[in-house]
Amino acid sequence: MAIKKAVIAFGGNAILQEGDRGTVREQLRHCSETCEALLDIIGKGYELVIIHGNGPQVGNMLLRVEGARGRAPELPLDVCVAATQGTMGFMLEIEMRNRLKARGLVKDVTTLMTQVVVDPDRERFEHPTKPVGPFYDKERAEELRQEKSWDIVEDSHRGFRRVVPSPRPIEILGVETVRSLINQGHIVIAAGGGGVPVLRRNGEHLTGAEAVIDKDYTAALMAREVGAELFIILTRVESVAVGFGTAQEKPLRRITAAEARDYLAQGEFPPGSMAPKISAALEFVEATGHEVLITAAETLRPAMDGLTGTRIVKGD
Amino acid sequence: MAIKKAVIAFGGNAILQEGDRGTVREQLRHCSETCEALLDIIGKGYELVIIHGNGPQVGNMLLRVEGARGRAPELPLDVCVAATQGTMGFMLEIEMRNRLKARGLVKDVTTLMTQVVVDPDRERFEHPTKPVGPFYDKERAEELRQEKSWDIVEDSHRGFRRVVPSPRPIEILGVETVRSLINQGHIVIAAGGGGVPVLRRNGEHLTGAEAVIDKDYTAALMAREVGAELFIILTRVESVAVGFGTAQEKPLRRITAAEARDYLAQGEFPPGSMAPKISAALEFVEATGHEVLITAAETLRPAMDGLTGTRIVKGD
Repeated sequence: MAIKKAVIAFGGNAILQEGDRGTVREQLRHCSETCEALLDIIGKGYELVIIHGNGPQVGNMLLRVEGARGRAPELPLDVCVAATQGTMGFMLEIEMRNRLKARGLVKDVTTLMTQVVVDPDRERFEHPTKPVGPFYDKERAEELRQEKSWDIVEDSHRGFRRVVPSPRPIEILGVETVRSLINQGHIVIAAGGGGVPVLRRNGEHLTGAEAVIDKDYTAALMAREVGAELFIILTRVESVAVGFGTAQEKPLRRITAAEARDYLAQGEFPPGSMAPKISAALEFVEATGHEVLITAAETLRPAMDGLTGTRIVKGD
Repeated sequence: MAIKKAVIAFGGNAILQEGDRGTVREQLRHCSETCEALLDIIGKGYELVIIHGNGPQVGNMLLRVEGARGRAPELPLDVCVAATQGTMGFMLEIEMRNRLKARGLVKDVTTLMTQVVVDPDRERFEHPTKPVGPFYDKERAEELRQEKSWDIVEDSHRGFRRVVPSPRPIEILGVETVRSLINQGHIVIAAGGGGVPVLRRNGEHLTGAEAVIDKDYTAALMAREVGAELFIILTRVESVAVGFGTAQEKPLRRITAAEARDYLAQGEFPPGSMAPKISAALEFVEATGHEVLITAAETLRPAMDGLTGTRIVKGD
């Protein structure tokens, strides 16, 4: 029997949720709930690659680095992303092992540290837009601009915040290993936080980049590279909708790539949240002809059965 | 041709050295130097598993957690160890990739997040002995004892310090994956910091343990489990010596396991440094009949050629 493969992406906010204190105990509970939901994908016969985001977690890591400034060496953003691959990979892996055991399933779980080579696109590096880390007051923001050459922008009402580039992923280092492991039946956790961003200098030498990669784009690339039949994006909503937040709001159950591209062009999807997910989904659908499923963790099971969620398909 | 396998262990202080400021730039330089030395093992035809320690790095992570107390959630020690698997794994992997490329060698490099199940040995958990993290004054030490139920001991002249258990590793989760990857020719970085310590509650459920595992024992277990022909321990000295620090100091070039055990019983090796390395080495030699090489990173090449270093062998 041919192996069916799925790649799933979810945000760091699935593990450290709004309103949480963010303790490790809470995060472990959310890891357990998330892994329980993911087992429904395996129940449908798919081998699985898991790509988690790390927004709140890398924010906390930056706070810790700042809190120990002068007492412990500072860590650049790429190394902070690597730290969250460690912490979140650990929490997800033990909870996945525990959920498998509880269901009587025997599967290996492997967590890979993953570097992702990014597009050195000058525009994105020279005009960073992605806010990370704590808010500062005006004076401190000015100091940090001077001291560290950070780009810092004013965030409406909340203060000043560092912005970093969010370049596109172009190559996942070790992707053949991911492919080989899922072909052997492992559940693979990889490219956490979208992967640690690295640049290839002179086409050769690798160096870390102070940037963050949108995990949905990395996941779309992963899904293509491992030959996934299904790419799943978990988000806060059960389905993608048009007319979102209006009286005409209408959930989309099944749309073609062409329809999704039209809605995207019409500005139906908010730029900071659903739009990049749709763009990442389209990259996968258009390159492979396979489907993307977008839904919430809570509705993953009925969505896998086609009862809810949004499927983006190549054609009719 | 049968594959020859080697497991190598070195301390976190090979990467963040005494007298360093400990910046990421410095650590990357030491990663590069260390990886360059390790390529000599590969040059001798061995497939390689790398296990790094994390002493100074996890100490810095604890300082960061403490520095952000009240602003970012605290991380227990197991999660801090996981963070260093991320940060150090990333730095070692990119520098290994860069060194390989510079030498024109084509090999995959894979870094695995690794949990290690520890012996729940009551004595070690009830009477922790391994100091970790920052020094405190008496007042703060008392607060932390109350607040967190930490075990804190007075360290001569330097203040008060938390002590944690250092249990023995009994099972490396995912060791079959390490075995399979090195058989495919990957350089594998695994079980960083000795592995994230986990306990199996009721023989089943995995939970993190606030402990640290001696990386030499984890490496000895790894070397047995992957069927290594050679187990290498890098340390600060070129060779193991008897009469260390005396006028009668004599380097040992090649000793049998029985001789090593005698020297150990006679107290020839300092308890906090060389003694556990010799114990870990003996576990491997006695279980497998294969050799252990102990030397410094700087002398690894001549030691591989038998010109220096200490070899511990099964018999004459």
